[in-house]
Amino acid sequence: MAITLGEIATYLQAKLIGDETTVIHGLATLSDAQAGQLSFLANMAYKDQLQSTLASAIIVHPKQAAECRCAALILDNPYLGYAKVSSLFDTLPKASHSIHASAVISESARIGKDVSIAAQAVIEDHAVLADGVVIGAGSVVGHNSRIGRDTRVHQNVSIYHDVTIGDHCIVHSGTVIGADGFGFANEQGKWVKIRQLGGVAIGNRVEIGANCTIDRGAMSDTRIDDGVILDNLIQIAHNVQIGENTAMAACCKVAGSTKIGANCTISGGVGIIGHLTLVDGAHVTAMSLVSKSITEAGAYSSGTAMSKTREWRKSAARFRQLDDMAKRLKAIEKNINN
Amino acid sequence: MAITLGEIATYLQAKLIGDETTVIHGLATLSDAQAGQLSFLANMAYKDQLQSTLASAIIVHPKQAAECRCAALILDNPYLGYAKVSSLFDTLPKASHSIHASAVISESARIGKDVSIAAQAVIEDHAVLADGVVIGAGSVVGHNSRIGRDTRVHQNVSIYHDVTIGDHCIVHSGTVIGADGFGFANEQGKWVKIRQLGGVAIGNRVEIGANCTIDRGAMSDTRIDDGVILDNLIQIAHNVQIGENTAMAACCKVAGSTKIGANCTISGGVGIIGHLTLVDGAHVTAMSLVSKSITEAGAYSSGTAMSKTREWRKSAARFRQLDDMAKRLKAIEKNINN
Amino acid sequence: MAITLGEIATYLQAKLIGDETTVIHGLATLSDAQAGQLSFLANMAYKDQLQSTLASAIIVHPKQAAECRCAALILDNPYLGYAKVSSLFDTLPKASHSIHASAVISESARIGKDVSIAAQAVIEDHAVLADGVVIGAGSVVGHNSRIGRDTRVHQNVSIYHDVTIGDHCIVHSGTVIGADGFGFANEQGKWVKIRQLGGVAIGNRVEIGANCTIDRGAMSDTRIDDGVILDNLIQIAHNVQIGENTAMAACCKVAGSTKIGANCTISGGVGIIGHLTLVDGAHVTAMSLVSKSITEAGAYSSGTAMSKTREWRKSAARFRQLDDMAKRLKAIEKNINN
Repeated sequence: MAITLGEIATYLQAKLIGDETTVIHGLATLSDAQAGQLSFLANMAYKDQLQSTLASAIIVHPKQAAECRCAALILDNPYLGYAKVSSLFDTLPKASHSIHASAVISESARIGKDVSIAAQAVIEDHAVLADGVVIGAGSVVGHNSRIGRDTRVHQNVSIYHDVTIGDHCIVHSGTVIGADGFGFANEQGKWVKIRQLGGVAIGNRVEIGANCTIDRGAMSDTRIDDGVILDNLIQIAHNVQIGENTAMAACCKVAGSTKIGANCTISGGVGIIGHLTLVDGAHVTAMSLVSKSITEAGAYSSGTAMSKTREWRKSAARFRQLDDMAKRLKAIEKNINN
Repeated sequence: MAITLGEIATYLQAKLIGDETTVIHGLATLSDAQAGQLSFLANMAYKDQLQSTLASAIIVHPKQAAECRCAALILDNPYLGYAKVSSLFDTLPKASHSIHASAVISESARIGKDVSIAAQAVIEDHAVLADGVVIGAGSVVGHNSRIGRDTRVHQNVSIYHDVTIGDHCIVHSGTVIGADGFGFANEQGKWVKIRQLGGVAIGNRVEIGANCTIDRGAMSDTRIDDGVILDNLIQIAHNVQIGENTAMAACCKVAGSTKIGANCTISGGVGIIGHLTLVDGAHVTAMSLVSKSITEAGAYSSGTAMSKTREWRKSAARFRQLDDMAKRLKAIEKNINN
Repeated sequence: MAITLGEIATYLQAKLIGDETTVIHGLATLSDAQAGQLSFLANMAYKDQLQSTLASAIIVHPKQAAECRCAALILDNPYLGYAKVSSLFDTLPKASHSIHASAVISESARIGKDVSIAAQAVIEDHAVLADGVVIGAGSVVGHNSRIGRDTRVHQNVSIYHDVTIGDHCIVHSGTVIGADGFGFANEQGKWVKIRQLGGVAIGNRVEIGANCTIDRGAMSDTRIDDGVILDNLIQIAHNVQIGENTAMAACCKVAGSTKIGANCTISGGVGIIGHLTLVDGAHVTAMSLVSKSITEAGAYSSGTAMSKTREWRKSAARFRQLDDMAKRLKAIEKNINN
């Protein structure tokens, strides 16, 4: 990859201070960058590195433009500029636009134009792959499932029957979409399985990380709306709904029938119990347990802060005495006030 | 699917109030149901919807029968009735009862009658599949492993060597059974692997969700007894034992050699440390850490309740001062009493 | 497997008290062992079992040698002795040293000597497998990725492009290495994907459990150093670095750009937020959240201890009042001191 700063400035609609003929070969952080590389400053904690970086150019906010010792691409949102320019340097292997001889494709499946299906993939009966779909090696698309235009499914993904995925989505390896929701009735101590009759409906421009599990609905569909981004190892139970552009970091678990609003950010390892509603714009900090509905936008937390274990043990022991301590405190106040 | 209310009443052994010739095409919640659909009332929070639902019939407890404006199927346990009737409407594609040409099956494997093996599956040496087994696309059954009668293994499941799975089990996609337990001895700072010589023994009527990991035992077998139900992304370490009919929700992690009793319910995200024993009938709430054995049936918890982050920060800071607060409280009490 | 005590003593460089011609057929715990089996005593909680065990021999520390009623193999570190002897009894099926006819191997891939590639595996363009590599059924090695000498990759593993794995590593089933890091910039409420241009660099003698996810770096590589051991279902985000011989138990999640030192032990279910540094020799207890850098070796914790739920509810309610309680306590102290 080689592209001039002038071409990058045009692509980003950025103002360029410096030589437009400089050739850029790659991207790097300020501290790692070498000559021929482009960097960016988005987090002011790294501002001092503007002086020391070896980068040939930096994407910066207008306020930092004067501090660059190399070429500067000036944008109000340098991080967004970095995101956009990253696509010019993508290393992801190009789709083959062909169907590998070892793939197994049902005669009743409908395959669009320019579809790529890698080795050992399986497309089951009545599945539909729209134009430009890419299916990775070893992935399975189940009966009646539909994958939208230009969606890329990486390797060893398992998509059950009656799953719908929209356009321009990315599904990373090992993810399972449409397995049975965890529904059982108890009959004299034994569990009776509730057949999971719904499907999964995933919108457009959704990205799902690796080794996630998104269960099918019990009667209606589990639903993930347009623009949602999910990191790795996330569990979405049956009948969950996730609103547009909500972001969820790795290892979150959302229990059945919970509705998460739009534009929420759920940090890593968060658990959300079932049958709750989270308003648009809810933010939950790492490893919190959301144990009741959130009706007001804002940040929510549970847990305790980290300590040295020997200090923590004392606090943890006292935690169990908290109710007793509160009552004694009240008794003293009464005593003093009398 | 089309079945009359009369047929459903017979199947459920339910009393029917209404027209037995009414045809039912599907199941839905009270709020979603349309004419031609059957619903149920199990959670009294939804009782008001008996008035407004468009369902053609509802499975209800005798106490609510009079409140239905449509046909009623009367059962003491409506939720169990719903579970049973769900199997009449199942959308899961039928097993093929055939072996796909692309599957790779060792000559030394023993394959029963009416077995289905989907595309790209692999059955390794000396594996045994009993009558009626269904193996999904891309799944691997390792050397010497045995799958019991009518058990269904979904797509891309990895079963290592010397694993035994009983009859009428379900294993969802992406699950790994029999990977090495995490056993290492330390030799001058470096880890020396302990070969994991045991297997995994899974009973009958066990359901295992998607992307779980159930490790093989160090010397004897990891053991999951009859009727256990596991949700997705659950980690079962080496030598764990789980008693009959215990239910475990998503993202639980059970460390090595812990023994969990029968009829326990472990909520989502719970961690259980190693070498513990949990008595029959232990119940653990979501995201708790079980840090010592449970010797008495009942409910157990750890963690803190959710707050707004700015409130939570104050509590978390004070948590670290708890021991100091407790000592000061005691000093005041002494002071006052003197 | 049959081997004499004399041969085992020589292999372990252990002193043998007993008959060197005794034949050993397997390993077992003290309580499970039968005649013909070898056991060990590493945890003094089981010391009483020296009297009752049916084992034919026991690996013990010199201090316990006199208490054995059977043959004794004497070593300063009996657990390490057990680890070493376990390799003599390994049940893992031997590698085939052949390439299965159903495997799909790019013409541009470079395959070393004595490589085993199982059924349905896929080796993509320009991938390199060094001598002695074993690739399990259904696994995929992506473009340009390199697997070092004698490394074993189990079934259904997904390795993306530009991933490097060192020599003598083990990667368990279902693990995904090199999926995109979770990087997005926000443009007016919508997420713009940041292409993940780095790779993953894994050292030598690394073991990675089942269904883990190790993301590729944003611009440079995610890095796991020599001798690291990871259990199952672990999430390693982009640009994380893990130092030599660090051990991490199941279900840990490490957020982006965090650097973990060497010889750390991270217990199960721990979360570590992004952009932190953990010093060499940090130890974190189960399910803790590491919310700031650790600059001093030692043990760290967060969370609360387990209680009965009805007791816990009171503590959890009081936790929210902690700041108020602390202020009232201070007011009383002031009151008393005046």
